[in-house]
Amino acid sequence: MAWDTEKTKSLLLEAATAEFSAYGLAGARVDRIAAAAGVNKERIYQYFGKKDDLFGIVLERQLAAVMDAISITGTGVEAVTTYAGRVFDYLAQHPELARLTFWEGLERAEPTAAEMRISSASGKVAALRAALPQLSEEDARELLLTVLTLNDGWQVLATMDHIYTGTIVRDDARNNRRRQAVVATISALTRELIADH
Amino acid sequence: MAWDTEKTKSLLLEAATAEFSAYGLAGARVDRIAAAAGVNKERIYQYFGKKDDLFGIVLERQLAAVMDAISITGTGVEAVTTYAGRVFDYLAQHPELARLTFWEGLERAEPTAAEMRISSASGKVAALRAALPQLSEEDARELLLTVLTLNDGWQVLATMDHIYTGTIVRDDARNNRRRQAVVATISALTRELIADH
Repeated sequence: MAWDTEKTKSLLLEAATAEFSAYGLAGARVDRIAAAAGVNKERIYQYFGKKDDLFGIVLERQLAAVMDAISITGTGVEAVTTYAGRVFDYLAQHPELARLTFWEGLERAEPTAAEMRISSASGKVAALRAALPQLSEEDARELLLTVLTLNDGWQVLATMDHIYTGTIVRDDARNNRRRQAVVATISALTRELIADH
Repeated sequence: MAWDTEKTKSLLLEAATAEFSAYGLAGARVDRIAAAAGVNKERIYQYFGKKDDLFGIVLERQLAAVMDAISITGTGVEAVTTYAGRVFDYLAQHPELARLTFWEGLERAEPTAAEMRISSASGKVAALRAALPQLSEEDARELLLTVLTLNDGWQVLATMDHIYTGTIVRDDARNNRRRQAVVATISALTRELIADH
């Protein structure tokens, strides 16, 4: 019987994404990933290295997917508010990504796949400043950090949402209301930043 | 020899705060907490119950401390920008709190100490609306959620800061710049929200 290596790798990465998203880096179990994928655990070490390496590969893959899916287009304030709304929607549809981002923040001193991400971040800064030439590079970087902190944080802090708005189960109405609040925040901030110039 | 129960409890809670902040709920080890406090592990179960209960007690204690330390005072937009800046400073000085908040978000379906926190949140909403009567209750709740998400997220996402601004070691200059960005965001949003009314 011939091994279908690509298929096996893809099954393992899917299982690893679910496992790391649920339990984080320290909490994830290579045994459980192998069992969920129906693959011998030795394959994981063979294809991806240690658990730590596998976490990096999983996060890098998720980040590459979102970078492919969402770019900054258009001009003016709308370019950034549209981007903020699209990030909100993408994260709602891919709940693993925000969780992985915060596990990384809590469990790793240094970012995974730093080179690829720094290059992608610079691309976004450039696209944002092409849309809004009044924006300084420094302000553009802070603004993008604000967009991502608000959107990623929303996915992970359901407990805080419960405390502040009484939300127990998030439905479409609650998601839409928060989406509108995030977009309004980015809109107000951006208009203020460009008004200063 | 008489046990000094209060002293023992306080040593255990200090050790537990450091342990949960570093490793989260699943990752924390009761053994390590006992060893760090120099106290027999059985005392932990006796005084605080299971590890899960101890996590709740630690987080509740940290949250009660921040609620005592920071209230919303003054009137107008400055009341909320001052509050946002004070939360930023408090979290910088108490790095365990934001970490515990995100561990809770990632590892627990329901908030710890919900009753106390919901009551405190309602108090903040009322204080915010006393300072800014034009603000609807719904907007006040979203605004507070935004203040906390930005401030807590900043503490935990050093990795993302690295990606977006190149920061490797956070110094005073970087902290001040981000503080200013957070306060500017809350200021712009609040002015927009009250201008609508």
